[in-house]
Amino acid sequence: MSLLVVGSVAFDAIETPLGKVDRTLGGAASYFALAASHFTPVRVVAIVGDDFKDEHKAIFRGRKIDLSGLEHAAGKTFFWSGRYSQNMNERTTLTTELNVFADFNPTLPEPYLNSSHVFLGNIAPKLQRSVLKQVRGKPKVVGLDTMNYWIDGANSDLRETLKHVQILTINDDETRQLTGEHNLLHAAKQVFKMGPKILIVKRGEYGALMVHPNFIFSVPAFPLEEVKDPTGAGDSFAGGFMGYLASEGSLSEHALRRAMVYGSVMGSFTVESFGVERLAKVKRAEIRARARRFSKLTAFKL
Amino acid sequence: MSLLVVGSVAFDAIETPLGKVDRTLGGAASYFALAASHFTPVRVVAIVGDDFKDEHKAIFRGRKIDLSGLEHAAGKTFFWSGRYSQNMNERTTLTTELNVFADFNPTLPEPYLNSSHVFLGNIAPKLQRSVLKQVRGKPKVVGLDTMNYWIDGANSDLRETLKHVQILTINDDETRQLTGEHNLLHAAKQVFKMGPKILIVKRGEYGALMVHPNFIFSVPAFPLEEVKDPTGAGDSFAGGFMGYLASEGSLSEHALRRAMVYGSVMGSFTVESFGVERLAKVKRAEIRARARRFSKLTAFKL
Repeated sequence: MSLLVVGSVAFDAIETPLGKVDRTLGGAASYFALAASHFTPVRVVAIVGDDFKDEHKAIFRGRKIDLSGLEHAAGKTFFWSGRYSQNMNERTTLTTELNVFADFNPTLPEPYLNSSHVFLGNIAPKLQRSVLKQVRGKPKVVGLDTMNYWIDGANSDLRETLKHVQILTINDDETRQLTGEHNLLHAAKQVFKMGPKILIVKRGEYGALMVHPNFIFSVPAFPLEEVKDPTGAGDSFAGGFMGYLASEGSLSEHALRRAMVYGSVMGSFTVESFGVERLAKVKRAEIRARARRFSKLTAFKL
Repeated sequence: MSLLVVGSVAFDAIETPLGKVDRTLGGAASYFALAASHFTPVRVVAIVGDDFKDEHKAIFRGRKIDLSGLEHAAGKTFFWSGRYSQNMNERTTLTTELNVFADFNPTLPEPYLNSSHVFLGNIAPKLQRSVLKQVRGKPKVVGLDTMNYWIDGANSDLRETLKHVQILTINDDETRQLTGEHNLLHAAKQVFKMGPKILIVKRGEYGALMVHPNFIFSVPAFPLEEVKDPTGAGDSFAGGFMGYLASEGSLSEHALRRAMVYGSVMGSFTVESFGVERLAKVKRAEIRARARRFSKLTAFKL
């Protein structure tokens, strides 16, 4: 199966209590693609500026990542900088320079049009919908991520886009903001009315919760001795999740549960280093080993 | 095996967004004993005033709960009142009247002295230690709960008491305050140096994490459609946990994992009603059924 992702490719400057890094490769689509490519071929739709060089592209090379949909525009690449609090639970955005991303109007190359799985990363709901419209026929699975900015400022557009989505992956606060419900099970029922039939609530250091009309599944975050940089954990989760689903080609309960675990596995690697460093280097055997450690972390016999 | 608990028996007035209740039976030892009694006989050491009537005692009746260590003193029973925020994540204490609890000096009745399992509820560390000293020989398992007030105000006493404890059950904030470590795995290593060899971090709506020198185990909180009143959830968790362990008579990894699940099960019943209402009425079959639902909530096959 073929997985298309649209989202940001960016440069990030990140400061955490354990260090800092300047202008490292970031953006939701970068984390997503690197995570997903361990499971299935990924097609990236994004935009970068003329400061995006071969050395940056090289990070994606040698993987099943198709960059023919990565548009190069005159100007600078999207730049974000942020600082994490002492306990890494809060982060302050210091700079957001949209640059070439401000005029992003995603166009899918011909070979992308038959994508069976589509992930609409956190961009304007209108653009998410335009990507979806370009895909030929009806994709088998569509996932979507969004944020408070769009829930608040482009609500009706978002609602329109959600009608075409099966899987919504957002965090606790976004879930509550979108539905007006504090209780996540009640919130899920509201989400189901909007279109998606699967809600995944990302809960940072507490893991993730999947609410499906027929079952609920909870996966913890992997307890690590050192979290260096939480940036991209959620996007890596989404990449591992969608990548695994695309590789299975099924939305069976078993596949969905395993996809949640592989999403968490990929997120856990990402936070072990700054930027995509660890994620870009992780080996298949390490992924399998960590998935087994998730089993040990949660298994019990009654 | 026989499980002794020392702690508060109190009257609570509770207000949550879903209702309020005046002077209902509360206190850590009440929740603990009711939860634990489904698994093993429980011996309660606590103090109440002359406003504690037969109708209140009746709530414990017909269960394996020995109240011969419940001291009746002249004066009023410990009274607490509090209000929960809209999302129930924060609570404000409105009143704390220690009353007869201020002069509590726990004395164990003769039949309690052979207790194999002891849970030192959240009272002054000096009193916790005095209870432990009265037990004949060395109890098989000692658990302890504490709070910021004692970590801050009676730190050296607490450290002395912890030397005799195997299992520490506290929340995230208390763990970080006690150890000075934000990372829970690092915090656990500090705890291990203090005496306990098992740290259980209670994380409210996110569940609980057990850190043992040989393994880590995570259990989610049970997602409920309606949480009426979070009061006593942690004490019910501790009761289910220690009660199950006492019934098994073992600290094997399997027993500890199952105990975590039964702790979470009991906590999940408690929050479904105000005070001990649901906990006091829950049936064995409901406990078993909910434990099976915890399996479904967390199980996956790689």
